[in-house]
Amino acid sequence: MNKRIAIDMDDVLADTTAKILQVSNQILGTSYTRADLATPAKAAEFYQQYYPIRDFLHEKGFFRDLPVFDNAIDVVKRLQAEYEVFIVSAATEFPNSLTEKLEWLEEHFPFIGWSHTVFCGHKYMIKADYLIDDHEKNLVKFEGKGLLFDAPHNYHVQGYQRVFSWKEIEGLLLEKKEEA
Amino acid sequence: MNKRIAIDMDDVLADTTAKILQVSNQILGTSYTRADLATPAKAAEFYQQYYPIRDFLHEKGFFRDLPVFDNAIDVVKRLQAEYEVFIVSAATEFPNSLTEKLEWLEEHFPFIGWSHTVFCGHKYMIKADYLIDDHEKNLVKFEGKGLLFDAPHNYHVQGYQRVFSWKEIEGLLLEKKEEA
Repeated sequence: MNKRIAIDMDDVLADTTAKILQVSNQILGTSYTRADLATPAKAAEFYQQYYPIRDFLHEKGFFRDLPVFDNAIDVVKRLQAEYEVFIVSAATEFPNSLTEKLEWLEEHFPFIGWSHTVFCGHKYMIKADYLIDDHEKNLVKFEGKGLLFDAPHNYHVQGYQRVFSWKEIEGLLLEKKEEA
Repeated sequence: MNKRIAIDMDDVLADTTAKILQVSNQILGTSYTRADLATPAKAAEFYQQYYPIRDFLHEKGFFRDLPVFDNAIDVVKRLQAEYEVFIVSAATEFPNSLTEKLEWLEEHFPFIGWSHTVFCGHKYMIKADYLIDDHEKNLVKFEGKGLLFDAPHNYHVQGYQRVFSWKEIEGLLLEKKEEA
């Protein structure tokens, strides 16, 4: 039986941070860029201003038009040939996001399908061999192998294998497998 | 650590069959009752007519006003004191249902919360000690103890402990536990 991979959506498949920067800059009258967030001090400065205004995540439409990360579509498609792939998104906190996330997946990852899509709060009751996620809270209780997808809000997190791109995941989960 | 129970929504917490009968009778010009569905022949007759018209499940509003089964609220609340309770609904097939199901849960089971609500397709990647469900397809690959919630569409299913009411579940999972 193929091994099972659970893949998060926000800031793993979707560049949620890009949209957060865009909307936050609009509200705050600032001009933070992703490059700014590469400096821990600057990132802290941004997130301090972002957290009080982050209610916009609950607004209709926020999750519908997020950009897809480079190579995510091709690599997930290739992973699906070797693994059982589930998309697992902590989405029940954001009721408006649910239909938008299904539509977004249908647009960009139509080969996944509703049967392999999971919207939840906690993720620790998901049984899988791998979890690719940007949040420590999701990885910490996961019993399989966790891969931390690098993001400005997780620079401080240690103790997990950090991955920086879908090309790197391809190397890790497909090419190494082929060599073995 | 408390044992974990995964509880299905449709035809387990919610009397989905009641609404299916109501809408089907309206469309078909029939007058089937739940009592009719107690006879396998009559049930087969109804479901033969229902399956071709069941697209109404996808219509907006269908899942929002389902009746709650007797004693479900009280027993789930009591279970929550002894177990970790997750609501696990195969809902991603019905995009319109997602927000409606969250709202329905918030109305009738506000003590569950989004963190313990899971919307999925397949359920076999859910890690729990018990799964209470009306569908064999969900129970068959489940690795914990499955309880089949009796419903007209599962009369033919064998090989699972069948439960008929929330009072019976209370006896099984709470009172027996207290005696032990």
